[in-house]
Amino acid sequence: MTEAGKTWAHHEVGKKLSNWGRWGDDDEIGTLNLVTPEKVAAAALLARTGKRIDLGMAFDKNGPQDGGFRINPVHTMTWTPLDTAGLPDGMISADDMIVMGLQCATQWDSLAHVGYDGYFYNGVPSTAVRPGIGATKNSFATANDHLISRGVLLDIPRLKGVDVLPDSYEITSADLNEAEAAQGVTVQPGDVLCLRTGWYKYFLDGDKSKFGSGPEAGPGLEALEWFRDRDIAALAMDNWAFERYPTVVEGSVIPVHQVAIRDIGLTIGEMFNFEDLAVDCAQDGVYEYLFTGTGLKISYSVGSPVTPIAIK
Amino acid sequence: MTEAGKTWAHHEVGKKLSNWGRWGDDDEIGTLNLVTPEKVAAAALLARTGKRIDLGMAFDKNGPQDGGFRINPVHTMTWTPLDTAGLPDGMISADDMIVMGLQCATQWDSLAHVGYDGYFYNGVPSTAVRPGIGATKNSFATANDHLISRGVLLDIPRLKGVDVLPDSYEITSADLNEAEAAQGVTVQPGDVLCLRTGWYKYFLDGDKSKFGSGPEAGPGLEALEWFRDRDIAALAMDNWAFERYPTVVEGSVIPVHQVAIRDIGLTIGEMFNFEDLAVDCAQDGVYEYLFTGTGLKISYSVGSPVTPIAIK
Amino acid sequence: MTEAGKTWAHHEVGKKLSNWGRWGDDDEIGTLNLVTPEKVAAAALLARTGKRIDLGMAFDKNGPQDGGFRINPVHTMTWTPLDTAGLPDGMISADDMIVMGLQCATQWDSLAHVGYDGYFYNGVPSTAVRPGIGATKNSFATANDHLISRGVLLDIPRLKGVDVLPDSYEITSADLNEAEAAQGVTVQPGDVLCLRTGWYKYFLDGDKSKFGSGPEAGPGLEALEWFRDRDIAALAMDNWAFERYPTVVEGSVIPVHQVAIRDIGLTIGEMFNFEDLAVDCAQDGVYEYLFTGTGLKISYSVGSPVTPIAIK
Amino acid sequence: MTEAGKTWAHHEVGKKLSNWGRWGDDDEIGTLNLVTPEKVAAAALLARTGKRIDLGMAFDKNGPQDGGFRINPVHTMTWTPLDTAGLPDGMISADDMIVMGLQCATQWDSLAHVGYDGYFYNGVPSTAVRPGIGATKNSFATANDHLISRGVLLDIPRLKGVDVLPDSYEITSADLNEAEAAQGVTVQPGDVLCLRTGWYKYFLDGDKSKFGSGPEAGPGLEALEWFRDRDIAALAMDNWAFERYPTVVEGSVIPVHQVAIRDIGLTIGEMFNFEDLAVDCAQDGVYEYLFTGTGLKISYSVGSPVTPIAIK
Repeated sequence: MTEAGKTWAHHEVGKKLSNWGRWGDDDEIGTLNLVTPEKVAAAALLARTGKRIDLGMAFDKNGPQDGGFRINPVHTMTWTPLDTAGLPDGMISADDMIVMGLQCATQWDSLAHVGYDGYFYNGVPSTAVRPGIGATKNSFATANDHLISRGVLLDIPRLKGVDVLPDSYEITSADLNEAEAAQGVTVQPGDVLCLRTGWYKYFLDGDKSKFGSGPEAGPGLEALEWFRDRDIAALAMDNWAFERYPTVVEGSVIPVHQVAIRDIGLTIGEMFNFEDLAVDCAQDGVYEYLFTGTGLKISYSVGSPVTPIAIK
Repeated sequence: MTEAGKTWAHHEVGKKLSNWGRWGDDDEIGTLNLVTPEKVAAAALLARTGKRIDLGMAFDKNGPQDGGFRINPVHTMTWTPLDTAGLPDGMISADDMIVMGLQCATQWDSLAHVGYDGYFYNGVPSTAVRPGIGATKNSFATANDHLISRGVLLDIPRLKGVDVLPDSYEITSADLNEAEAAQGVTVQPGDVLCLRTGWYKYFLDGDKSKFGSGPEAGPGLEALEWFRDRDIAALAMDNWAFERYPTVVEGSVIPVHQVAIRDIGLTIGEMFNFEDLAVDCAQDGVYEYLFTGTGLKISYSVGSPVTPIAIK
Repeated sequence: MTEAGKTWAHHEVGKKLSNWGRWGDDDEIGTLNLVTPEKVAAAALLARTGKRIDLGMAFDKNGPQDGGFRINPVHTMTWTPLDTAGLPDGMISADDMIVMGLQCATQWDSLAHVGYDGYFYNGVPSTAVRPGIGATKNSFATANDHLISRGVLLDIPRLKGVDVLPDSYEITSADLNEAEAAQGVTVQPGDVLCLRTGWYKYFLDGDKSKFGSGPEAGPGLEALEWFRDRDIAALAMDNWAFERYPTVVEGSVIPVHQVAIRDIGLTIGEMFNFEDLAVDCAQDGVYEYLFTGTGLKISYSVGSPVTPIAIK
Repeated sequence: MTEAGKTWAHHEVGKKLSNWGRWGDDDEIGTLNLVTPEKVAAAALLARTGKRIDLGMAFDKNGPQDGGFRINPVHTMTWTPLDTAGLPDGMISADDMIVMGLQCATQWDSLAHVGYDGYFYNGVPSTAVRPGIGATKNSFATANDHLISRGVLLDIPRLKGVDVLPDSYEITSADLNEAEAAQGVTVQPGDVLCLRTGWYKYFLDGDKSKFGSGPEAGPGLEALEWFRDRDIAALAMDNWAFERYPTVVEGSVIPVHQVAIRDIGLTIGEMFNFEDLAVDCAQDGVYEYLFTGTGLKISYSVGSPVTPIAIK
């Protein structure tokens, strides 16, 4: 519970933007409900040339984790051609396995990932995340098949004429409106908004002081109303922290996560690679595409690794 | 190496159907090259109503593995709301991780999964699968973004008027042709063929004597030529063994795997759930759809878990 | 919490046998306190010939787990000689890793493993086991170095003239006294009591219907007072269930665990292999030995895998 | 294979010190054969007061690994009291699991860990380490029960009057002889030699630039003859690199490992904590003790985590 008698700015924002009950009391997927069949069919038409652009980070030991709280994927071979020597017909085969944090690289947070005051999205009590089972409500397994929709890239560093936004830069609704105007695209209900900060460059450069710790650019509380007004289905970022970090809400660490996930019911993505996409969009001037970002239907999960694809 | 002086029927078939060199000497994805941008764009148009049908098995401890060679997914919580008690703003959060065989449930085999006589697809030597690294060639990471195409379901048990094909039933090219005719659909180059045996029913029934061991229905060597002639991009099955099991090729265990993956360069899928899809297709008479079946871009992997979706 | 108004037989026993506070309010290791330095020094003298007898189950995929709640150890190579080819001085090397349930094979339960009514041993509240951290009190890490002491085998099937005790046989204090008399040995304070049921034979036979499920022989509530009176430091069993299973305490599953661990503060071991030891003791008539059974000092763990050794 | 025509200093040393065949052609444990039953019985007498001194590093995420090649232990709860709410008799329980590199913290290297020119100890070919199985010869599982013997600490920094030896300091046979003289102890056949460099201090200080990378003090090729002459059973070090690092043998990385493990058949240990032991020995002047350092009997393993104990 929050400190007695204290009013938190983000909780006030949360109350105002709440989607609780909007899709029924049993709803577990929030704004992904906006990805209706009609939305999917319309999004599919955006695959005009069929060009695929990969938005995912490779899953391997060179990921951004430092070996503490979350681990980078550990991929091991459980069988190799060396193990099949001597089969009569010369058969060779290989098998492998993985150990990974579900939040270790490009990933979605489910609506059981973050909340406050004892509740997750739609009044799900904190105890619904059971230590020995996982998220018995708001699991990513329920949400997974809704992550195909229209994708729209808003490229804020391009708008600002920089490669990467400044440290701790807060992306505002004004920025979002200006980017729409500059790019000639409009964010619509049910879209998966891909919001570029340029931060992925630091990952590509191997700079762990910038990607994985330290100040980052991202949306603040102010932009949440814009996301809610536009009724986006999901928001994917190309940084580690998702939101502007550190926050200006004193005593809080990730207030934007809290309101986005718990109150708005917004599925959020982190560590997406928008570098190739940004170049492509700048070249053809088309900032919309068919976005396929389904992950894995892992029962009771609070998130999922994903290798998303933009198809133009 | 194979036994000296012995001629193997499947190796002969492999020679005849080989795609080695067809897409260049450095090609690592085989028939997935047939999923051209044009193919993707055309496939997208099949998402007519935007209806989504999930083709994946849930990833959890109730999977089909028996705890020996491959393990079912082990999903554990690494952080829960219980661990965040006392944060000033009442924040709660949860994180999780997974340990899983990449071939444990619904999955794709990469072109480094099976071969014979010291080689994988396109002349990649067996030593390219390095025990400590994985598949340095023919990895699934290279193939992943091509697994979006036109999907076509051929429902063989429906053709035969049964719920599930008989044990060890071999699906033939005649069956495939008849199913096309009966269903009014034609398999085309670049398609992801979804071939139903009905076997998934045994998994749903929890019958491990039928799903995971014992005789299974599937294609034999004879059908491989049909797959090659039609130039399908990938073949997904709803059983465990993929191919008719046990095989009639004495001294061999999985000869169809060998030829399909190594010689044709065909990406194959196992343990797909076609039950809902089959009902839907029977109802509307439409056996084609936009198939999205990208998995995870795991570096050097010889396969990937996947939660595929059919969109009609 | 227990059902209101109901009195449970094992809770009454627990109250009577409680060791809470005996070694101070902050004590986390219970009866292991009885393994004093003097006890260790005296135990060492039992290593008369230096003969080693291995009491552990091999840690591998052929363990007793069935792939559900707990998994058998998954051991994979992360590096092999194949990966070092080409080093100038011809160096080859290999590395490996493991994934395992800490309770999957021969193991100790720490005093944070089982309790009731919201408390573990010595008044540690259930919340001291934090989902994201583990046992912040009563961890095995604290207990580990005390698991070297005098070991005594009581061979109950031998006493009864059978290979294996009958299903659900309850080992009583009378049995324990008779075994002492028959074997010419006396259990003393601080001993690690190794209590044989013969059940390990079923594991060696690969009979999972007998080892891992189904009725088992073991101590019941009645024997707990004997263990408490004799002040044993730890109790190791050669079966899966530890206690007589199923219990006669209706509505309870493992009441002996509860009282032993929570009230007496007794460290208990499961799935020990006493087969070789039993043969050896029958031959030389010596049922006491230096017991070394330290496991791994895993921070915050509620148990540990162990490969114990008896030295005579 | 080594470079043609080149003579390597360490291979020459290896030839001279070789123990191949000494304990038979099928021997898999090398110098651990020197831990005879008589040796164990004599060692047990060194447990004079029964005082235990823990020599192990805690297994947890704060270990020395950096998340690349080897991972620190990942310990997760698979069941907690939160998951047992509602059982009639109020039972609570907890279970846990671990993922760990077997070489991640305090550990033994088996005789299948390092070799050269295609062979491990006693002529075992490199192919005996099978990627999908592990060490089919020279596994740690075979060696484990021999790791109880007389332990002797030689405290080289104390001899030199420093806290920690200088970077890349090479411990010589002269140092070993002088330490024996100064400490009044003699290393004997079958001993587990615990050789202190003081390096563990850097781990305790959290200085990863000194522990886990960078130059380290340790024995060089010269000292190997001393180890062989004294017929020690095992050699445990308190640093990361085991040997003096970097080596002066150009073109080689870990030549001392190679000769010790492959030619001498010496089981070696790394990352032991000798800090408390060193203080204790300095206080009572007794540098010998009962050493118990059995790890886990993991089938086909090339090493084992261990929490060793010195008992004086």
